[in-house]
Amino acid sequence: MIFGLVKKNQYQDSVNLMLLSSRLSGMDNLDRVSIMMGTPANKDIFKNTGMYVEEFDQAKPNDICIGVEARDKEMLKVVEKELEAFILDMASSTRSSNLSRVKSLQTAINKMEDANLALISIPGEYVYEEGKKLLEKGVNLFIFSDNVSLDEERALKDLALKKDLIVMGPDCGTGIINKTPLAFANNVNTGNIGVIGASGTGIQEITSLISRAGGGISQAIGIGGRDLQEEIGGISAKTALKMLEEDKETEVIVFVSKPPAKGVMDMMIEQFKSIDKPLVALFLGASGNIDSNNVYYTKNLEEASYLALYLSKKDGSMQKNLDSLKEKLNLIRANPKKRQIHGYYGGGTLAGESKLILKKELQKDKNSTIIDFGDDEYTKGRPHPMIDPTTRIQAFNNLKDNKEVAIVLFDNVIGYGANQNMANSLKNPIKDLLEYKKKQNDEIIIIGSVCGTDEDIQGYKDQVNILEEAGAIVVESNASAAKLAKEALEYLNDTRTLEEEDESFLNKPLKIINVGLMSFAQTLFDKGASVIQYDWSPIAGGNKELQRMLNLLKDK
Amino acid sequence: MIFGLVKKNQYQDSVNLMLLSSRLSGMDNLDRVSIMMGTPANKDIFKNTGMYVEEFDQAKPNDICIGVEARDKEMLKVVEKELEAFILDMASSTRSSNLSRVKSLQTAINKMEDANLALISIPGEYVYEEGKKLLEKGVNLFIFSDNVSLDEERALKDLALKKDLIVMGPDCGTGIINKTPLAFANNVNTGNIGVIGASGTGIQEITSLISRAGGGISQAIGIGGRDLQEEIGGISAKTALKMLEEDKETEVIVFVSKPPAKGVMDMMIEQFKSIDKPLVALFLGASGNIDSNNVYYTKNLEEASYLALYLSKKDGSMQKNLDSLKEKLNLIRANPKKRQIHGYYGGGTLAGESKLILKKELQKDKNSTIIDFGDDEYTKGRPHPMIDPTTRIQAFNNLKDNKEVAIVLFDNVIGYGANQNMANSLKNPIKDLLEYKKKQNDEIIIIGSVCGTDEDIQGYKDQVNILEEAGAIVVESNASAAKLAKEALEYLNDTRTLEEEDESFLNKPLKIINVGLMSFAQTLFDKGASVIQYDWSPIAGGNKELQRMLNLLKDK
Repeated sequence: MIFGLVKKNQYQDSVNLMLLSSRLSGMDNLDRVSIMMGTPANKDIFKNTGMYVEEFDQAKPNDICIGVEARDKEMLKVVEKELEAFILDMASSTRSSNLSRVKSLQTAINKMEDANLALISIPGEYVYEEGKKLLEKGVNLFIFSDNVSLDEERALKDLALKKDLIVMGPDCGTGIINKTPLAFANNVNTGNIGVIGASGTGIQEITSLISRAGGGISQAIGIGGRDLQEEIGGISAKTALKMLEEDKETEVIVFVSKPPAKGVMDMMIEQFKSIDKPLVALFLGASGNIDSNNVYYTKNLEEASYLALYLSKKDGSMQKNLDSLKEKLNLIRANPKKRQIHGYYGGGTLAGESKLILKKELQKDKNSTIIDFGDDEYTKGRPHPMIDPTTRIQAFNNLKDNKEVAIVLFDNVIGYGANQNMANSLKNPIKDLLEYKKKQNDEIIIIGSVCGTDEDIQGYKDQVNILEEAGAIVVESNASAAKLAKEALEYLNDTRTLEEEDESFLNKPLKIINVGLMSFAQTLFDKGASVIQYDWSPIAGGNKELQRMLNLLKDK
Repeated sequence: MIFGLVKKNQYQDSVNLMLLSSRLSGMDNLDRVSIMMGTPANKDIFKNTGMYVEEFDQAKPNDICIGVEARDKEMLKVVEKELEAFILDMASSTRSSNLSRVKSLQTAINKMEDANLALISIPGEYVYEEGKKLLEKGVNLFIFSDNVSLDEERALKDLALKKDLIVMGPDCGTGIINKTPLAFANNVNTGNIGVIGASGTGIQEITSLISRAGGGISQAIGIGGRDLQEEIGGISAKTALKMLEEDKETEVIVFVSKPPAKGVMDMMIEQFKSIDKPLVALFLGASGNIDSNNVYYTKNLEEASYLALYLSKKDGSMQKNLDSLKEKLNLIRANPKKRQIHGYYGGGTLAGESKLILKKELQKDKNSTIIDFGDDEYTKGRPHPMIDPTTRIQAFNNLKDNKEVAIVLFDNVIGYGANQNMANSLKNPIKDLLEYKKKQNDEIIIIGSVCGTDEDIQGYKDQVNILEEAGAIVVESNASAAKLAKEALEYLNDTRTLEEEDESFLNKPLKIINVGLMSFAQTLFDKGASVIQYDWSPIAGGNKELQRMLNLLKDK
C-alpha cells in the first residue's frame, strides 16, 4: 500500500532531501520511500512511479511530500517522527556554524559588495531570475542546477559576455577556482595545468589522474554540457580559454567535451590555435586535425591527462632554463639588431625538426638559418659532419665577427659510426666564442642536445658534461633545444613589461554568495573561503509568475 | 699551390678514406687536403673545389687520388709516406681479425647459404647489380649507400616485394634488427617498441630518447628517404609495418618520416588504421587526422618518443592484467554464449568514454550495454548514483541469473559531494556475485576504476583496496578499465591457437653478408654476429659497362 505525508512550509534543498531519503530507506518495514518538494514536476514523478496519493493535490513547492510503500499505515507516524527529528537536526547543525546566512539576495549583495562568484543550486526554473541579478552586479556564476532552459542559458551567457564575466554551467557539477574546489570536486594538488570541461566526471577524472601522477591543477572551469551546442555557441568555452590563457598559474590547458556542433567545433579549433600555451584537446568521439604547433588532440581522458602532465613538466623545465638565461637575454635585448638564430646540424632530421619548430622565427629574419652540414653541398670530398667536426668548428669561429646572431643551436649525434668524441672537438670553438663575445660585451647563447645513450662508446652523460663545461646549454632533446631557442627569441622580441599585474578573477581571493544548497556553503566555509549563504526558497508559495511580479516590484 | 698524388690499384672504402683524411688534416704545413677514389664523379668534385691537378686525368675508380694545398711541393712526399703507413695499418689491423673475408659475392653466398641480410655500402652506382643478385638468393637488403637511382630503387623494391623480402634504404643510415645494431645505430635497451623511419637521425633520436627514459626497442627499420615518394610508393614502409605488426616482441609501433606524397600519405594512413597495435605517427611538418583508435599523430621526435614509451608501458601492464585473467577467461571461452559486456556507471562522461572505447564490441551484441545510472530515467525521485548505490547494487544482483554476461565494468567517483564510502556499499554485491558465479561454474569478470585522490575524504587507495578485496580488478583509469575489457573480449572471441610459431625474419638470428665498408663487418663480428665480409671493389678497373658485361658472362 502507498501512503502519503505532506509537511507544509518546510523547504529543504535537494541534498537535504537525499540525506533524509537515505535515513528513511534504512528503516525496517518500509518497502519504498520517495521524498520531494511539492512542485508540479515532482508531482508528475510521484504519479509516474506509482507513489502519488491525493494528499499531494494541495502541496506547494515549499511543502515536503513523502510517499511510502508499506504494509501498515502506522508506518507513516514513524516516518513523520523521523522527519521532524531530521528537520531539528538540520536546524541545530547549521545554527552552530558561524556561517553568515541571509534570506534575500539583496542582503547578500549588501553584505558582500565585492562578491565575485555565486554558486547557484536552486531548482532550474528559478535560476535565470537570480542569475541575471547577480551578473548585473558583476558577479560570476557557477550554476550547479540543471533544468535551465536553453533560452535562459543563452540570455545569461550573453549578459555575462557583455559584462566580462563567466557563467559556469548550468549543470556544472565541478570546478576548482583559485585553489577552491566547488561542488563535486576532488582534493587535487595545486599546479600549472588548467582544465576546461563541458563534463563533470571528465574534469574529475583528468584532475585526479594528473594529481595522482604527481602533477597539479591551476584551475578547473566547468562550462556546462550544452555550451558547445549551436544555440549557445561556446560562449563560456571561449571566455574560459581566454581566462586560462591570461592566467599566470596556468602553463598547459586541457579542454574536454563531447563533440561540439560542426560550426562551433571549427571555431573552437581556430581559437585553440591562437592560444599561446600548449593545449590538450579531447572531443570524446570526434576527430581533430593536427595542424597546429600548440594543440594536441587526444582520444580518452587518460591520454589527455598524461599528455598534459608531460607537457606541464616540459613547460616547467623550459621555464627554468629560460629563467637561467634571463640575465644574458636582457643584455642581448638591449641590442635591437641582435635577433638572429643559427643552427649547425650534423643530423638531417634533427635540422628539419628545428626548422619546423622555429618556422615563424626563421621567416622573420632572412639571415636566420638552420644548416644541415650533412647536405651534399657541405660534404663534397669531406666526411659526414657526424664524423668530421671541421665545418661546424668553422661555423662557430665565423660567429666571432657576427654581431647579429643571438642564439646558436647545434646537435651531437653519437653512437656506432659517429665521431669518437665530437663534444671534445666542439668544446674549444664553443668556449672560445663565448669568451670572446663576453669580452666584446656582445653576448651569445649556445643551445644543444646530444642524441645517444650512456651505453654508446662516447657516453651520453660524458658528452653532455663536456659541452656544458664549454658553456653550452644542453637540454634533453633536439625538440626541447629548438623550443627553448624559440622561447628565448620570443623573450627578446617581447617589449612588454614583464611583471604585469594579473587582474583576472581567477587569481583574486574568491568572495562567494551561495544560492541554494547549504552543504556547499558549509564545505566552503569550513575550508576558510569567504562565503555568504543565501537561504533561497520559492517565495509566494512557489508560484513562479507571482514571484516574477514581486521581483519586478522590488526592482523598482 | 695545389699538388696531386695518385696511388694506383689501392681501393679503399669511404670510411677508410675518411680516417685517412682526418689523419692528414692534422698535419702541419697543409692548408687543405681532399682524398677520393678516382671516379668520374669524384673528379668533378676535385674540379669544383679547385683541387684538381692533371695527374688525376688517368686515374681509375680503383686509384686513390689525393689533392693537397700547401706552400711547398715537398709536402707531397710527407703525405705519400703517411698514406703508405695508413695502408699498412689498415692491412695489419684487418689481418689480425678472425672475420671471414671473401672476394666475390658468389663465394660469400656459398659460404653462408642461409644468409638473410646483406649490408651494402659500396658506391651507389654499383648497388643495383649486387642487390638484385642477393634478393634473388632470398637475402633481405640494408643499403647504406646513397646515389642509387630512383629507377633502380624501385626495381629492387619490386623484386623484394615479389620475394617477400625487405629493402632497407638506399641511404639507410641506421637500423636495429633482432637486437643487432646496423651501421650508425645507438646502443639502446631492448624492449617492446618498434620503430620505422625514413630518416636516420630521426630513428636515432627516438630510440635514444626512449632508451634514456627507461623504455626499450624491439626493432628499428630504416626504409630510405625516398620510399614514400610517389615513384616508390612506400613499398618498404608497407612491408616494415606488416613485419612489425606480426613481430611478437613489438607491442607499440613508431613511424617517422617527412610528409609523404599525397597519394602515398592517404594510403599510409589507411594502413595505419588497419594495424592491431598502437601506432605513433610523425610526419614531420604535415598534418594527420585523429579518427582512429590506434593511431597517434605527433609533432616532433620527442613527443613521438615519450608517447610511444607511455603506450608501451600501458600495453605492458595491460598484458599483465590480461595474463592474470587468462584462467578465468579460458573457462568463459568454453561457453560460446557468454560474450556480453555490461557497464554500470555513476559518471556520465566515464560511461561515454567506455562506450567509445568499446564501440565495436557493443555493436556485436545488442544485449551488451553501458548504463549511465546518472541519466534522468534512473534518477527520478532518487539521489545521483555517485551518492546512492541502490541502482547499481540492484544491477549486480540481477546478474546472478544472467549467464550471458562475461564482463562487468564499473566506476567509483569519490570526492566532495560523493558517497562517503561507495566501495563499501558495492563490496558485498560484488563479492556475492563472484562467489555465486564460481559455485555455478559460470565465471564472470568485474573490472573497475576509482576516480579521485588520496586526499579525498574517502581515500583513493582505501577505496581501491576494498573493491579489490571484494574480487574486482581495479585499474589506473576508466580508459584502462575499458581497454582491458576490450582486450578480454577480443581474447574470448579469438579462436586462433595462441602460441603460433613466429616465422618472421625479424626474430631469426641474423646471418649477414657485408658488401662494402669493412668497419661495419668488424663491428658486427666483434659483437658476435654471424657475418661474412665481401671485399667489394670495382672490377675491370671500375668501368661500369665492362663490369656489367663480365657479370653477364659469369651469370651464364
